Amino acid sequence: MNARDYYRWWQRADLCYQHNQLSFCGRSVQQLANQFGTPAFVYSAARVRDNLARLHTALNHAGLAGRFTLYYAMKANRFAPLLTLLKQTGLCGIDACSPAEVEHAVSCGFRPEDISFTATSLSLRDLEQLARYDGVFMDCDSIQAIDRWGRLKPGTAIGLRVNPAMGIGRADNDKLHYAGTRTTKFGIYHEQFAQALDTAARHGLRVTKIHFHTGCGYLTAQLDQLERIISQCCTFIDAAGSVERVNIGGGLGVPHLPGEQPLDLDQWAAVLRRQVGGRTLHLEVEPGDYIVKDAGLLLLEKTFVERKQTTTFVGVDGGFNIAPEPACYNLPFQPLPLHYDGSVCTPVTVVGNINEALDVWYADALLPDLADHSHLALINAGAYSASMASNHCMRGSFREFLLI
Amino acid sequence: MNARDYYRWWQRADLCYQHNQLSFCGRSVQQLANQFGTPAFVYSAARVRDNLARLHTALNHAGLAGRFTLYYAMKANRFAPLLTLLKQTGLCGIDACSPAEVEHAVSCGFRPEDISFTATSLSLRDLEQLARYDGVFMDCDSIQAIDRWGRLKPGTAIGLRVNPAMGIGRADNDKLHYAGTRTTKFGIYHEQFAQALDTAARHGLRVTKIHFHTGCGYLTAQLDQLERIISQCCTFIDAAGSVERVNIGGGLGVPHLPGEQPLDLDQWAAVLRRQVGGRTLHLEVEPGDYIVKDAGLLLLEKTFVERKQTTTFVGVDGGFNIAPEPACYNLPFQPLPLHYDGSVCTPVTVVGNINEALDVWYADALLPDLADHSHLALINAGAYSASMASNHCMRGSFREFLLI
Repeated sequence: MNARDYYRWWQRADLCYQHNQLSFCGRSVQQLANQFGTPAFVYSAARVRDNLARLHTALNHAGLAGRFTLYYAMKANRFAPLLTLLKQTGLCGIDACSPAEVEHAVSCGFRPEDISFTATSLSLRDLEQLARYDGVFMDCDSIQAIDRWGRLKPGTAIGLRVNPAMGIGRADNDKLHYAGTRTTKFGIYHEQFAQALDTAARHGLRVTKIHFHTGCGYLTAQLDQLERIISQCCTFIDAAGSVERVNIGGGLGVPHLPGEQPLDLDQWAAVLRRQVGGRTLHLEVEPGDYIVKDAGLLLLEKTFVERKQTTTFVGVDGGFNIAPEPACYNLPFQPLPLHYDGSVCTPVTVVGNINEALDVWYADALLPDLADHSHLALINAGAYSASMASNHCMRGSFREFLLI
Repeated sequence: MNARDYYRWWQRADLCYQHNQLSFCGRSVQQLANQFGTPAFVYSAARVRDNLARLHTALNHAGLAGRFTLYYAMKANRFAPLLTLLKQTGLCGIDACSPAEVEHAVSCGFRPEDISFTATSLSLRDLEQLARYDGVFMDCDSIQAIDRWGRLKPGTAIGLRVNPAMGIGRADNDKLHYAGTRTTKFGIYHEQFAQALDTAARHGLRVTKIHFHTGCGYLTAQLDQLERIISQCCTFIDAAGSVERVNIGGGLGVPHLPGEQPLDLDQWAAVLRRQVGGRTLHLEVEPGDYIVKDAGLLLLEKTFVERKQTTTFVGVDGGFNIAPEPACYNLPFQPLPLHYDGSVCTPVTVVGNINEALDVWYADALLPDLADHSHLALINAGAYSASMASNHCMRGSFREFLLI
């Protein structure tokens, strides 16, 4: 990697250097850091809207206009102002995975009928709470969930979350494989599918949707795997007989490193058109990362720069506990200086303030001399960061800001 | 593994089956679960006291009586009632790693002079906040921290956290290596030690303590590595000249699986005696896990039991977000039924309610038919669980109870 690549690949209209100053949503990031203090997450409303609009455009161009719905996977980022913004776009519903998420989405302006619910290991208490929200569409993940939901809501329409026993994901990360050769807790497998349909029928439940997760963080190179999985899942659709909607989950990835190409949405939409377009099915997609990840920056204050043995460390005032993906999932958030004039960069390791060896933000970040820098900004911090934050070491304080 | 091993190795006076009922601190765990609801962490005051007392006894027997202090690493578990209990034992101080931890410890009854502070990547704001607590003993982790602390508190006594560039830990877990062949952010290395001493001298700071982390989760088999590290660190002590205290960090492990033997404390204390006893040094140890880990149970409600392909899954109403060690650090928390009559057990996979593939509590748990069971208890849940909990998927609700 060289500095030119490091500073180029992520730049776009709402995130770029202007007159050597890092600019986000038309604001100086340095001014934001000075005003908000750190740690602070800042989210670009414009980027969120662009990401959503790009998905709509691709699906429309592929000939699926009027035949698809996007459900934002709110577990990626549930910041209330962001949820209300998403509702106001009119471009998506909500993918929720716990009763508290349903309540929170409704509190932010979504209606129950905007919500598709897919979860695992639901307690009876969970199901009773969900049953109060008429309109929420329930995808059942186990035969026992079908049976319990059938007792609470006999005669209603449901989805079945199925598991095709194959999956895709970032090749470097086993932890993110939802499905695959190892049996997981998710969904109903072929071996138990007939029993699932019987259970639904016993309660007069109509199986009108098949739901499956296809993977996680996939980019263009993984689209042929996506196509094989969808094709495989169509066997469940045929077996059920009554299916009107198919939900292919989320999993659309964004680049994390220089040299990674963004997902080609036209190719992605063409896969969906080929696999689903010939059937009289309504398509559902549940993006999370894709909508919000690259719309978020994490602003941190520089705490120290120091050579240890032969490595130069740059410390910041926030650790992996407020954004676990880099340390725990091996998905780096590239650090940027808030001003940059093209001067010489050297590799440094950016680390957080938690007493754990894994608390490293980025090894070999290409940063200039930081003597007159007070802060750094980490990109790609918009998803699975604040929403997964803990108060480990009592270092869990941060603030969030939606920039409109 | 067989059922006999599975049900035997963890039993002790305050955690065992009595008349087939799981008993904890003399209470029926089923009654606790019914009363408290789930998820709930329950902590045994008796076990915490026993663990502390056992460390004292071993060090006393090794001839170190009056020459050591234990500092409880509060990041392991900061539940306020537990901290007050620990203060009341009179058997330990506090190892804190953030200003908020210092404040919290003081709010629970500890005095500033009971607190040893060792952290990394401290901001100036952090240091200014700490400087208000006269009596807290500061171990500096970088040359810049020495310099800043020297400006705030010239002429005081400090410790230096050093890095011997070697470390030990559970062999299966790279993430927990604090020190080692790769340069980490922690401490001052040999290469920079002379500069660190110069910086301290410039502010009139007296270096009266050398601090180092030795590893993490070590059991008896790793004691020879511990001895080599302490021996190596004695070179820092000699180089500093003025050292009165040596802090060897924590890292004492507890067994997680049948067949793992507990740390032999007499052998451990003998190592410390051999390495430190011949010098006129006061010894400090910072156990966290060892004090509280096996003093905690996590009580969860069973949500479902279901066969998927050929694997039987048992779901519970809490996930890895409220206790990340099993999923993220590969340290299993063995699940137990709340009543057990010795009947036949089969391997099942116990899973949580989070929509992530890694949310598995225990693969191949040996559990009986669970038809008439409402709950499970996970052992070893007393450390790095609640203190690292997140609200991921808005599944972060739980309660904690200290049983005295």
